[in-house]
Amino acid sequence: MTKIAVLGHGVVGSGTVELFLKNKDNINRKNGLDLELGYILDIRDFPGLPYSDKFTKDINDILNDPEVKVVAEVMGGLHPSFEFVKSCLEHGKSVTTSNKELVAAKGAELLKAAKEHDCNFMFEASTGGAIPIIRPLDRCLGGNEIYAIAGILNGTTNFILTKMISDNMAFDDALKMAQELGYAEKDPTADIEGHDACRKICILSSLAFGKHVYPEWVHTEGITKLTLEDSMYAENWGGAVKLIGSVKRFEDGTILPMVRPAFVCNGNQLSYVSDVFNGIMVYGDGFDRIMMYGRGAGKLPTASAVVGDIIDCARQDGTSVSMTWEECSDSSFIKDYTLDEVQMYIRTDGVSENEINALFGEVEYLDRAGRPDSEKAFITPKLRECDIIEKMNKYKNNVLGTIRVLDF
Amino acid sequence: MTKIAVLGHGVVGSGTVELFLKNKDNINRKNGLDLELGYILDIRDFPGLPYSDKFTKDINDILNDPEVKVVAEVMGGLHPSFEFVKSCLEHGKSVTTSNKELVAAKGAELLKAAKEHDCNFMFEASTGGAIPIIRPLDRCLGGNEIYAIAGILNGTTNFILTKMISDNMAFDDALKMAQELGYAEKDPTADIEGHDACRKICILSSLAFGKHVYPEWVHTEGITKLTLEDSMYAENWGGAVKLIGSVKRFEDGTILPMVRPAFVCNGNQLSYVSDVFNGIMVYGDGFDRIMMYGRGAGKLPTASAVVGDIIDCARQDGTSVSMTWEECSDSSFIKDYTLDEVQMYIRTDGVSENEINALFGEVEYLDRAGRPDSEKAFITPKLRECDIIEKMNKYKNNVLGTIRVLDF
Repeated sequence: MTKIAVLGHGVVGSGTVELFLKNKDNINRKNGLDLELGYILDIRDFPGLPYSDKFTKDINDILNDPEVKVVAEVMGGLHPSFEFVKSCLEHGKSVTTSNKELVAAKGAELLKAAKEHDCNFMFEASTGGAIPIIRPLDRCLGGNEIYAIAGILNGTTNFILTKMISDNMAFDDALKMAQELGYAEKDPTADIEGHDACRKICILSSLAFGKHVYPEWVHTEGITKLTLEDSMYAENWGGAVKLIGSVKRFEDGTILPMVRPAFVCNGNQLSYVSDVFNGIMVYGDGFDRIMMYGRGAGKLPTASAVVGDIIDCARQDGTSVSMTWEECSDSSFIKDYTLDEVQMYIRTDGVSENEINALFGEVEYLDRAGRPDSEKAFITPKLRECDIIEKMNKYKNNVLGTIRVLDF
Repeated sequence: MTKIAVLGHGVVGSGTVELFLKNKDNINRKNGLDLELGYILDIRDFPGLPYSDKFTKDINDILNDPEVKVVAEVMGGLHPSFEFVKSCLEHGKSVTTSNKELVAAKGAELLKAAKEHDCNFMFEASTGGAIPIIRPLDRCLGGNEIYAIAGILNGTTNFILTKMISDNMAFDDALKMAQELGYAEKDPTADIEGHDACRKICILSSLAFGKHVYPEWVHTEGITKLTLEDSMYAENWGGAVKLIGSVKRFEDGTILPMVRPAFVCNGNQLSYVSDVFNGIMVYGDGFDRIMMYGRGAGKLPTASAVVGDIIDCARQDGTSVSMTWEECSDSSFIKDYTLDEVQMYIRTDGVSENEINALFGEVEYLDRAGRPDSEKAFITPKLRECDIIEKMNKYKNNVLGTIRVLDF
C-alpha cells in the first residue's frame, strides 16, 4: 500500500479528496498501483465526513510515516506551505502542489530539493487549473526551442471581459456579477490587477526558458482601466480585449514576460476563449503552435490536475523525473518592455487626424457606435513602446486609453 | 552516452533527425541527459548528408548495441514495423512511434511487451501530430473518469471542409487544391474516407477506456458525400460541418467510437478549428472539458512529438511507466451506433413540410441562399438513429443528404 497525504482541506483540498476517493479503484487498476488516502492535514476539525479519521494537525505524522510516498500541498500561501513542502521532499516524499504563489516564489529551490532526494515536485495544477500545460511543455514539446507563450491565465478577468463584450456591461457591473457568481473574491485585487496571471506566467517562463522568473521582475497591468468603449473598438478592429500573460524570447537570449490587456485578433484561437475558461498558446520551432483550453480554476478542475500529479508521482516512485531550472539572483535576462516593438491601440479625445498622422504616419482608425466626433481611436504602426509614449507625450492629457496589440 | 536510433528516413524520420540534431545540446542540458544519434535504419542510401555515417540497413546493428536505449519507429505501415518494434522492446529498448496504423492494430500487444521488458512504448506522435494528447490523457487527466472524446483528427479533410465553408468551394475543387498544396495524397482515400481518423479514435478510445478498440469495429464515414449546400445549411444553423472522430461511454459500460461528418455548433471550440489544424476535446468528471489544438500532421510537427517521447523514454530509462490496455477478442463492449440517440440534419427534395412534421413532429428548418422551393433541410428531434432511418424510409429517394449533429 502507498499512502497519499493531502495538506489542506479547503476548496481544492476537499475536491482532491473527493475526486481521488471517487475514482480510486479505477486509478489503481489502470496504473497498477495501490494508493490509499493516508492523511489530511488541517488545523480545523471536520467531523462527520466519511474520512474524518484521516485528519491530523501534525505534519510529523506525515513526515514520519514511511508508507506516505506522495503529498499534495493544496493549502495555498507561502507559509507554512513552503516549510511543509520542503520537509516532505527532504524526507524523499514526492510533492504535488496547486499553489502558484509557492512555485513562482520558490520553484527553483524546491525542484532542486526534489532532485537531491530522488523524488518529484510536480505542479500541473498551479497554472491553468485542469488544463494540461506543465507536463506538455516539459515533456511533449521538450524537443523544441520555445519562442513564445501567450495565455488567458485568469478565469475571473476573462469572465468580466466576456461580459463586457457580449453583454455590453461596464467593468464595475461585470465585476459585481462575477462576485455574485462566486468567480471573484470579495477582494478581487489579485485577479483584476493581474497578480494571479503574473505568477502563472512566471512559472511558464521559468519552465520554458530554464531560469527562475520572479513576479517582481514582470511588468504587470490589470484590467481595471478598461472601458466598454475599448472593447467596442476591439470588436470593430476584428478581435477582442483579453488579459494576456505572455513571454517571448529574443535572438540575444533575453526574454520578455508580461501581463497586460491586449487586442487579440479573431484569427488567434485565444480570441474565442470566453467566460471563465483559460487558453494557453505555445509557439516553438518544430510544432509551430499549440493551444490548450479548459477550466483554469475551481474545486474539481484544480483537483483533476492534482490527482493526475499524484498518480504520476506514484508511478515514478524512485525515479526523479522533475525538470529543474536555474535560480537567478539578477534579472538582466529580462528585457525592458519599453524597448520592445509593439502596435498600440490609442483612444484620444480632442486630437485631430492630422495631428495623429503627423505623429505616427499611417494609422488604422477604428469606429464604434456612439463615437463623438472629437474621439479618435486608432492602431499605431509597430514601434518601440518608449517611442510611442514619447510621441503621445504632447497629447498626454488627451489620451483616454492605450492597449497593446498581441502580435504572436 | 545514450544512443538513439531512428527507423526510417522518410518525411517524419528526416524531420526527427533534423529537430533532434538542431536542439540536441539544449535537450541534453535541460534534461541532464547525454543523448546522441546512433543509427538511422533505411533500405535506401542517403549520401552527402552530415550524418550519412549513421545509416544502416540491418536492424541487428541496433538490437545488438547495448548503448541504444531509445528507438523511434517512423517507417509507417505494419510490416516490418511491428516485428522491428517488438524486437526492440524485447531487447529492453524503449520505443516511440508515429505509426497510427501500428498502434491501432497492435497497441495492446506492444504495451504488454514493454511492461514485460521494463521499458516503454510511447506514441504521442501517432494521434494529433504535434498536439499533446496521449500523455495528457494518460497522465494529466488520469484522475478522472472520461466520458467522451471528440476530435478533428485529420488535417487534410479539415482543410477541404474549411475551403468549402470559407471560399464556397465544391468538394472536388477543394480536394484538388489540397493535393496541389501537398496536404492530400495522390490517392486520398485514407483521409477522405475517414480511415486515418478512425485509427486515431481507436488509439484514444483504447487509452481512455482501457480496452483495445480495433478499426474494423468502428463505424466510419468520410466526407465524400458532403456538398456545398450542406455546409451552407450548417452555417445557417449556427455552426460548421467537421469530420469528427469521437467516442463516448454509456452508463452500462459500453462505448461508441465513430467517425463521421457532423454539424458542430459555434459554441463548441471545435467549430473554430480550421485549415489543416486539428483539435481534440476531452470530457470527464473532474475537469469538465479540455481542448488541445495544433498541427496534426507534417514533417516537423510530427517530429516534435517523436522527439518529446525520445526524451521522456530516456528520462524514464529503467522505469516502465507506459500505460497498458486490455486486448479484447470480441467487440461486445462497442455499442451499435444505430441504437444511439442523435439529432439529424436531413436535406430532402420534394417532401412537404406537412409530411416532414407528420414524421418527426417539431423540426428546425434551415435555409440557404438559392434554396429551391422543393428543397427542405431540417434538424430532427433527438431520436434513435434506427428510428430516424425507418421514418425516412418512405421518402428515401427524396433524401439528398443526412449529417448527424454533434451533441457533446
